[in-house]
Amino acid sequence: NTMQSKSYSSRGMRLENDINDSNKYYRELDKALIYKKPTPVQVVHVDYPKRQRAKITEAYYKTPSTTDYNGVYRGKYIDFEAKETKNKTSFPLFMIHPHQIKHLKKVVFHGGIGFFIIRFNYHNETYLVDSKMLIDKIENIDKSSIPYTWFQNHGTLIQEGLYPRLAYLKVVDELYFKEDK
Amino acid sequence: NTMQSKSYSSRGMRLENDINDSNKYYRELDKALIYKKPTPVQVVHVDYPKRQRAKITEAYYKTPSTTDYNGVYRGKYIDFEAKETKNKTSFPLFMIHPHQIKHLKKVVFHGGIGFFIIRFNYHNETYLVDSKMLIDKIENIDKSSIPYTWFQNHGTLIQEGLYPRLAYLKVVDELYFKEDK
Ligand SMILES: [Mg+2]
Ligand SMILES: [Mg+2]
Repeated sequence: NTMQSKSYSSRGMRLENDINDSNKYYRELDKALIYKKPTPVQVVHVDYPKRQRAKITEAYYKTPSTTDYNGVYRGKYIDFEAKETKNKTSFPLFMIHPHQIKHLKKVVFHGGIGFFIIRFNYHNETYLVDSKMLIDKIENIDKSSIPYTWFQNHGTLIQEGLYPRLAYLKVVDELYFKEDK
Repeated sequence: NTMQSKSYSSRGMRLENDINDSNKYYRELDKALIYKKPTPVQVVHVDYPKRQRAKITEAYYKTPSTTDYNGVYRGKYIDFEAKETKNKTSFPLFMIHPHQIKHLKKVVFHGGIGFFIIRFNYHNETYLVDSKMLIDKIENIDKSSIPYTWFQNHGTLIQEGLYPRLAYLKVVDELYFKEDK
């Protein structure tokens, strides 16, 4: 009936770890200031044992109202959602939640830069897709998934390496700061 | 030895509630997209009861590495920390943590807008102070607090009302977007 949280948190978290490592690298080099937002938790009960730190003994995960990551890069507000799938030929749309679409539309409305980072584990490829482009596709498709080939054509492959694990800011430079070069 | 989390979370949270309400108002009017970051929690154990949602049964508060709030307004990245004190004549500096100072310096370095919202509960007044101005003061004072009068002279009083509770974006307009008017 119960299981350890460890298996929970490691489930499909490889992409998140890669992005967190990349953000740490970017922060240490003063390239950008981007963080993963903490998962919101509804705390119901806390114990305060003497001479020990407060222990939360009852809490529940809350549905986040926004996306995974935000921060500032080259003076611009950056906001994105990361998803990975084991699917070979398509990306299932149930993975993108309505509140994430709504939030990214607002990001763009307010002049921020919004995108998705989508990893196809089977192909070992990670794409950056502009939020407006993917949302338009989602809102105009009558299927429950988007073909892998669509990401090849409309996304930009993110270069993987050691430092950073995912050089996604290179793609951000190309897509959103082209005129400045 | 133990106490309910309710008394914990309501302790000194009036300012936070006012800012959260104001941000909700600003979001609903599409004026800005600013959220409180969730408090980071280190989850150690989760129960998965059948037909019920996951229950966190052991977790601990983590020290946040950043500030309370961030988001986007008029195309700019916004980041701030909120503090309230019951002190009458001064603001105690221990309330501002080194990681908050470090983070706000980086925000400004990357071209974002950073500030503090400081409430003096005794005077029923809430000030917005530019992050660089307050950090310079903190780093050049040899006392453990900053006089209340300094905030009167170097901060901007935030107008309080019903909608929004705290019209802090008016002050942001004055301080950071003056040329655009
Ligand atoms: Mg995600
Ligand atoms: Mg605070």
